[in-house]
Amino acid sequence: MLRLLRYTRRHSTSSSAAATTASAVPLTSPAFAVFGANTGVGKTLVSAGLVASLLASPSPSPSTVAYLKPLQTGYPDDSDARFVFDRAPALLRRLPLAGGGASTRLVASNHTLFPSPAVDPLPERQDAVVNYGGEEGVEEKALVCRTVYAWREPVSPHLAAEREGMPVEDEEVRWLVDRWLAEEDGGGEVWKVLETAGGVASPGPSGTLQCDLYRSSRLPAVLVGDGRLGGISSTLSAYETLLLRGYDVGSVILEDRGLSNDRFLLSYLRKRVPVHVLPPIPEDPKDDLTDWFSESSSAFSSLKDSLQSFHSRRVQRLNSMQRKSKDLLWWPFTQHDLVPVDSVTVIDSRFGENFSAYKVKDKTIVPQFDACASWWTQGPDSNLQIELARDMGYAAARYGHVMFPENVHEPALRCAELLLGGVGKDWASRVYFSDNGSTAIEIALKMAFRKYACDHGIIVDSEKDITSEGSVHFKVLALNGSYHGDTLGAMEAQAPSAYTSFLQQPWYSGRGLFLDPPTVDTSSAANVYVSYISQQLSQYAMSNNSEHIAALIIEPVIQGAGGMHLIDPLFQRLLVKECKNRKIPVIFDEVFTGFWRLGVESASELLGCFPDISCYAKLMTGGIVPLAATLATEPIFEAFRSDSKLTALLHGHSYTAHPMGCTAAVKAIQWYKDPSTNSNIDLDRMKLKELWDGALVNHLSSLPNVKRVVSLGTLCAIELKAEGSDAGYASLYASSLIRQLREEDNIYARPLGNVIYLMCGPCTTRDSCTRQLTKVLCRLQKLN
Amino acid sequence: MLRLLRYTRRHSTSSSAAATTASAVPLTSPAFAVFGANTGVGKTLVSAGLVASLLASPSPSPSTVAYLKPLQTGYPDDSDARFVFDRAPALLRRLPLAGGGASTRLVASNHTLFPSPAVDPLPERQDAVVNYGGEEGVEEKALVCRTVYAWREPVSPHLAAEREGMPVEDEEVRWLVDRWLAEEDGGGEVWKVLETAGGVASPGPSGTLQCDLYRSSRLPAVLVGDGRLGGISSTLSAYETLLLRGYDVGSVILEDRGLSNDRFLLSYLRKRVPVHVLPPIPEDPKDDLTDWFSESSSAFSSLKDSLQSFHSRRVQRLNSMQRKSKDLLWWPFTQHDLVPVDSVTVIDSRFGENFSAYKVKDKTIVPQFDACASWWTQGPDSNLQIELARDMGYAAARYGHVMFPENVHEPALRCAELLLGGVGKDWASRVYFSDNGSTAIEIALKMAFRKYACDHGIIVDSEKDITSEGSVHFKVLALNGSYHGDTLGAMEAQAPSAYTSFLQQPWYSGRGLFLDPPTVDTSSAANVYVSYISQQLSQYAMSNNSEHIAALIIEPVIQGAGGMHLIDPLFQRLLVKECKNRKIPVIFDEVFTGFWRLGVESASELLGCFPDISCYAKLMTGGIVPLAATLATEPIFEAFRSDSKLTALLHGHSYTAHPMGCTAAVKAIQWYKDPSTNSNIDLDRMKLKELWDGALVNHLSSLPNVKRVVSLGTLCAIELKAEGSDAGYASLYASSLIRQLREEDNIYARPLGNVIYLMCGPCTTRDSCTRQLTKVLCRLQKLN
Repeated sequence: MLRLLRYTRRHSTSSSAAATTASAVPLTSPAFAVFGANTGVGKTLVSAGLVASLLASPSPSPSTVAYLKPLQTGYPDDSDARFVFDRAPALLRRLPLAGGGASTRLVASNHTLFPSPAVDPLPERQDAVVNYGGEEGVEEKALVCRTVYAWREPVSPHLAAEREGMPVEDEEVRWLVDRWLAEEDGGGEVWKVLETAGGVASPGPSGTLQCDLYRSSRLPAVLVGDGRLGGISSTLSAYETLLLRGYDVGSVILEDRGLSNDRFLLSYLRKRVPVHVLPPIPEDPKDDLTDWFSESSSAFSSLKDSLQSFHSRRVQRLNSMQRKSKDLLWWPFTQHDLVPVDSVTVIDSRFGENFSAYKVKDKTIVPQFDACASWWTQGPDSNLQIELARDMGYAAARYGHVMFPENVHEPALRCAELLLGGVGKDWASRVYFSDNGSTAIEIALKMAFRKYACDHGIIVDSEKDITSEGSVHFKVLALNGSYHGDTLGAMEAQAPSAYTSFLQQPWYSGRGLFLDPPTVDTSSAANVYVSYISQQLSQYAMSNNSEHIAALIIEPVIQGAGGMHLIDPLFQRLLVKECKNRKIPVIFDEVFTGFWRLGVESASELLGCFPDISCYAKLMTGGIVPLAATLATEPIFEAFRSDSKLTALLHGHSYTAHPMGCTAAVKAIQWYKDPSTNSNIDLDRMKLKELWDGALVNHLSSLPNVKRVVSLGTLCAIELKAEGSDAGYASLYASSLIRQLREEDNIYARPLGNVIYLMCGPCTTRDSCTRQLTKVLCRLQKLN
Repeated sequence: MLRLLRYTRRHSTSSSAAATTASAVPLTSPAFAVFGANTGVGKTLVSAGLVASLLASPSPSPSTVAYLKPLQTGYPDDSDARFVFDRAPALLRRLPLAGGGASTRLVASNHTLFPSPAVDPLPERQDAVVNYGGEEGVEEKALVCRTVYAWREPVSPHLAAEREGMPVEDEEVRWLVDRWLAEEDGGGEVWKVLETAGGVASPGPSGTLQCDLYRSSRLPAVLVGDGRLGGISSTLSAYETLLLRGYDVGSVILEDRGLSNDRFLLSYLRKRVPVHVLPPIPEDPKDDLTDWFSESSSAFSSLKDSLQSFHSRRVQRLNSMQRKSKDLLWWPFTQHDLVPVDSVTVIDSRFGENFSAYKVKDKTIVPQFDACASWWTQGPDSNLQIELARDMGYAAARYGHVMFPENVHEPALRCAELLLGGVGKDWASRVYFSDNGSTAIEIALKMAFRKYACDHGIIVDSEKDITSEGSVHFKVLALNGSYHGDTLGAMEAQAPSAYTSFLQQPWYSGRGLFLDPPTVDTSSAANVYVSYISQQLSQYAMSNNSEHIAALIIEPVIQGAGGMHLIDPLFQRLLVKECKNRKIPVIFDEVFTGFWRLGVESASELLGCFPDISCYAKLMTGGIVPLAATLATEPIFEAFRSDSKLTALLHGHSYTAHPMGCTAAVKAIQWYKDPSTNSNIDLDRMKLKELWDGALVNHLSSLPNVKRVVSLGTLCAIELKAEGSDAGYASLYASSLIRQLREEDNIYARPLGNVIYLMCGPCTTRDSCTRQLTKVLCRLQKLN
C-alpha cells in the first residue's frame, strides 16, 4: 500500500522560500501532468478515464494509482478529485479487462487537504472498496485521490486566493507536489496523475502560470486538446507554451467534434507526438457519461499504452547515457580513464541555478546546485531562464542568423548600445563581436598591436600596407597565473603552465613578459610596485633588442582559471598607469569578471581605471549561447581606418553578432541591472548586495584545513591547505570533498586545483547562497 | 484615392511557386494584422472599431483605411468585411470626433473577390457614401473593404477548401496580400488592417497555420485576447505562438468579463505590450451593438494611438540604424571608411533563404535572397526555420546551458550519435565539441600533433608527461590558397596571404609546408602527383632538420575562402594516401564543405577516402547558432589516454556542447537528409539533386567576361575575368556587379575577390536557384 507522507502546510519563511526551487522526481514509476489546451476541454474526464484504464490493466499493472488536484476552485460543488474517485471505480466494472484479469479488490479514497475558510465544511475524507475483474486469483489495488487547496468561488485560483483570504505561495505548492511524488508503494508500481487547473497558462494562486508553477518537476505532459472549432489553434498554442517551458509532451488527447482536429494535429506535429481521439462528450448535463466512458475505453487504453511506452523509453535512454557518453564523447579537460562510467553526471535539464541530474542507481532525478555556474557562464534564475527561452524562440523565428559585415540588425545594435552604455561607459566607443573569450582576446591583441605600431612609428599612417615583418617582434606584458583562453593566440599571451606544455600545444612559445602579481596577502606600497614594474620593463628592453612590449593584458582584480587569486588592485592600477604613460595599449580580460561576477557590472569599477580594450563573454548572454564582444576606444578604431581594405581588421567568424546571442545579451544585461527584475541590485551604489553571509565566510576561513577564502560578488572561493605537490592543477586533493558535495549535498562543484568555489548568478537569493555555504562549511568541518 | 491594383487569381505554377516566399512591405503607412487568441473573441468587432476610430481621427488622419479579410468561411451569411463596411461608417456618426473635425465625405466599398463555387451568387460589390463630422472644411476619405476567398461552410478553411473544391495555395494568398500591401493613395496616409481567420494557429486553406501563412510580411500583430474564464491562458499561449514565428505584437485588446484578465496580462507581460480593455459584448444576438461601440470608443481610440506610436517608433528606429551602426559597430573584414552610411543594409528579419531588408529611401522592407548564405552558414528554408525556433525555445527552457566535461545531456549525445552515424560514418568514433571553425581546427591540430608524437617516438607512451620542448618542431602539410580560420593557431596552418600579414597578425609565421594544389584545369596524372608530393616532402625534410611534418590539413574538393577553387580530387586522394603511409595524421577541414554544401553530406564521399580527424561547423546547426565539432578516430583518442590528467586534451570553451547548438544540430542534420522534409534528397544515391540548371550554367560560363563557373551542390561560383592587379582579395572588380544585384535584383551577394557566387540551402528549391541564376546571367550579359 502507498506509504503516505504527512501533509502539512508549510508557509514559506524567508530562509526556506527557495529551498525546493527544483524538485526530486523519482522515475521508478510513471508520473504525468494533465494540462488543458483550454478550459472546458475535459481534463477531468481524461484523468478519470486514464485512471480507470490503469486500474483495469492486466498484471503486471500498477498496484496503486495516485491522483492529485493541487488547485481546485468552485469547491465543493466542483471537485475533480471526487469525480475521479466516484467514476473511475464505477467504470472498472464496465470496462473490458484485457486478458480476463484477476479478481480485484480496489480500496479507493478521496481527501481534500486544505479547503479555504470560505468553503463549507464537508467530510474531509471519503473511502470506498470496490470489487471487479475476473475469476483468477485475487489482487489488491489502491486509488488515492487528493485535492490539495480548494477555494469556493469558481474563478481562477489567483482571484479566489485573494478573495477568500487563502493565499498560497508557489514554493508551498511545489513542496507538497514533491512530497506527493516521493510517496512510494512497497515494491508495487505507482502511477501518478497530476491534474492542473484551467489552461496551460492559467494563473495559480500566486499568479504564477500553471506551466511555470510545475516546471521544477518537469513531469511529462498529457495535453488535453480542443476538438471544437478553433481548437486546432488553441491546442497547438498550448503545445508551444509547454515547449517554451521545456516540457516534453507525452500524448495529446482530444474530443472528436466532427472537425478532424486530431488528424490535423497528428500531421502538423509530424507524428512525433501520439494523438488520441475521444468520442463526442454528451452535452446533456444529466447524462451520467457511462456510455461515453464505455465508448472511450479503447482511446484511454491507447493513451495509457503510449504513456507507458514514453516512460519506458525515457528511463531506458537515461539509463544508457552514461555508457554511451563514455563511448562516443570526448570531453574537454578530461582524462577519460579517470572517469568511471558510473560517475558521469546525466543532466536531464536545468532550472535556474540548478541542474536536474538523473541518478541511475536510485532512478531519480535530483536537483543539484550548479556551483561552478557551468564554467562561470550562468546568470539566470528560473524566471530569467523562461524569459530567455521565449526570446530565443522569437529571435530564431525572426532572424535565425544573418550576415554581419556592412549590415545592421536590431539585436546587434541594441546589444552594442547596452554594452557601450554599461561596461563600456565613459571610455569605449566601438563593439567588435565574436564567439567566445578566446576569440575576443585574439581580436583585442590584434587591435592593441596595430595601435602600438601606429603610435610608435612602426607603421606610418600613410603606409599602413607596408609591413615590417622580420625586423620587429611584438610581445605582451602579462601576469603569471593569468589565463586568457585556449586558442594559440590567447595562449601565447599567458605564462607557461600545464596547459601550454609541448604535450598540449607544441606551437606555444609564450610571447610575453610575465610579471609576478602581488596578491592581497603579499601587497606592498605604491613606490615598490612602480619600481618593480619599471625595472622589469627596462631590463626586458635592454636584453631584447628588436622586441616591443606592445600590449598589457590583465584579468582585473581576480585571476579566475589561475586559481581565484585576488590581485592587489593598487598594483594593477599602477601597471595600467605605467603602460598608458608608455603608450602601450591596455587590455582588460573581463571574460570572467564582467557582468556582476564580482558584484559590479565591470571590474574596472573596482580598479578605478579604464582600459583601451576590453573583452566580454560568459555571463553576457545570460549563460544561454556563446557570444563575445571586444570593446575599444575610438583611437584604437582609428588605427585601422584608411582607404584600403587591407588595413581593416581582417578577423571574423561565421556567426559574428548572431541575433540569437545578441538577443540573449540584450535581455540578460538589462535584467541583471534592473531592480525590478533583480532584487540583489543596490541601486544607490550600483552594486550587488552582499550575497555570502559574512559570519559563515569568517567561520570558513578560520577552519584549520582552509588557507584562504575569497568572497566577492557572486563568487565564494575556498583554498584548501595543501602541501607541496598537492597544490596546482594536477592536484586531486579536493576530489573527495567535491564527490561528497555532489553525492550527499546536491552541490555540483568542480575543483580548481586545491580551490573549491561556489558561484551563483547575479539574481540568486542570499538565502540560497547561505544554504550552499552552510553545506560546504559542515562538510569541511567533518573533513577535519 | 486608393490606387487599386488588379486582382486576379494566380495559380502557382512550379516555376513561380516560391517567387514571393518573402514579401515587400511598404512602411510609408501603418499596416497591422489582427490575430485572435481564440475563435469567438470578437476579432471583427475590434477591426470595425479600429477602422471607425481611424476614420474619426482629426487631421492629419488617414485618408484611406483598407480592410482585408483574406479567408472567409460561412459566407455569405457571415462576412467580416461586410460587417466592417456596414458598421464602421454607421459608428462614425455617433463617435465623438476629437477636436470637432471637418465635414467628412466617406466613400466606402465592399468587395468579395473569389467566392467558392458553392457560394450563392451575391452582388459582388457594395458601395456607399456617408457624410459625418463637424462644420469646418470638407475632407474626403475612403474605406475599402475586401474579402479575398470565401467558402460557404462555417468550418475551418482547410476543410471548406477541400469540401467545396476551391483549394488555394499559400503562395497565392501571399501574392495577393503583397499586392494589397502595395496599394497606394496619392500622397495620403493609408492604414491597412488585415483580419486573420480563427485563432493564431488555425489552418488556412492549404493547412498552413495563420501565423505561418502571413509570416513572410511579418505585419505587426494586434492580438485580440480572451476575457473569459481560461482566457488568460489562451491569450498568453497565442502571444507565445506569435513570438515563435518572429512577430511583434503591437497591442493586446480584450473584452472585460469581470475577471480582470487584462490587468493580469499587463502585469505578466511586464508592461511591454499595451493591453486595452473593451466593455462586455452584449450576448443578445438582436443587439445591434450601437451602444457597445459607443462605450468602446475610448478603448478603440487608445488602441489606435498605441498602434500609431508603435509604427512611428518602428520606422524611426529603422531610419536611424544605418547612422548608429556606423557610429557604434566595428564590422569584421570591413574598412569602415569604404562603407557609405546609406549603403549599410538594415536587416529587419530573415525568412528562410531571404533577408527582409529595410530600404531607407523607399521606406519599404524588401526580400533579398541571401546569396552568400550568411557566410556559408545557412541551410534552413522557412519551414525548418520555424521548427528550429520552436526547438530553440524548448532547449533554452529545458537546459539553458549546462557544463559538459564528465557530464552528458540528451542534445549532445544525440548530436554525437548523428555525427558519427553521418559525416563520421565508417571512420570516426569520437566527437569533440567547440564553438566555431577556428577552434575546431585548433583542436584538430592538437589531436594530430599528439598522435604524430606518439607514433614517431617523440613522446613515449609511458612518459607522456615528459616534454621535448625546444628540440622538436612540428609543421603542417597544407595547400596554398587554403583557409582554416582566423585564430592564430588556425592561421599558422595556412599559407601567407593578406590575412596573415604583419599588419594583421604580427605573430603569424606560417608553420607549414604549403604545396601548390592542381585545380581541375591544371590536372595531371597520378604518377606526376605522387612524385611531386614525395619530392616536396623529401626536400623539406633535408633542409629542415629538427622539423616534422606532423599533420596534413586540407579542405576537401573546394577551397572556400581561397576563391572557390575546385581542387583535383585525385591529387587530394593521393596526398592523403601518401601521408597515411608516412603516419602523418590527416585532417579534413569540412567547416565549409560539410553537410551537403557540395551535394553530399561529407565531401570525403567525393574524395573516396577518410581522414583521421575532421572539422565541422557552419551548416551543422542549420545556421542558427555557433557550434563546431571535431571528429576523430579511436586511435587518435587513444593517444591522449593515460592515468594522468596532464595528458588529456586540455582545450575547452565555456559553452562546449551547449544544448542550444546541439539541439539545433540534431534537428538540422536530420532535416537535411530526410526526404520527407527535404525534397532535394536523391535517396538512391544519397545526394542532393542538381540544383543549378545545366543550360544556364553553360550559358554563364560561355560569357566573355566569365573565366570559370563551379557549380556543385548548393554552390554556384562565377569567376570573372580580371587582369593583373584586379585579381585577388583586394579586388573591387566585382563591386559594381554586386551593387546592381543587391539594388536591382534583390540578391544579397558578397564578392570574394573577383569571384561572385550564389549559395542556397540544402532544401532550397531548384526553381528558386533558377530564378537567382537567371538574374545573374542577365546582369552579366548587360555588363558586357
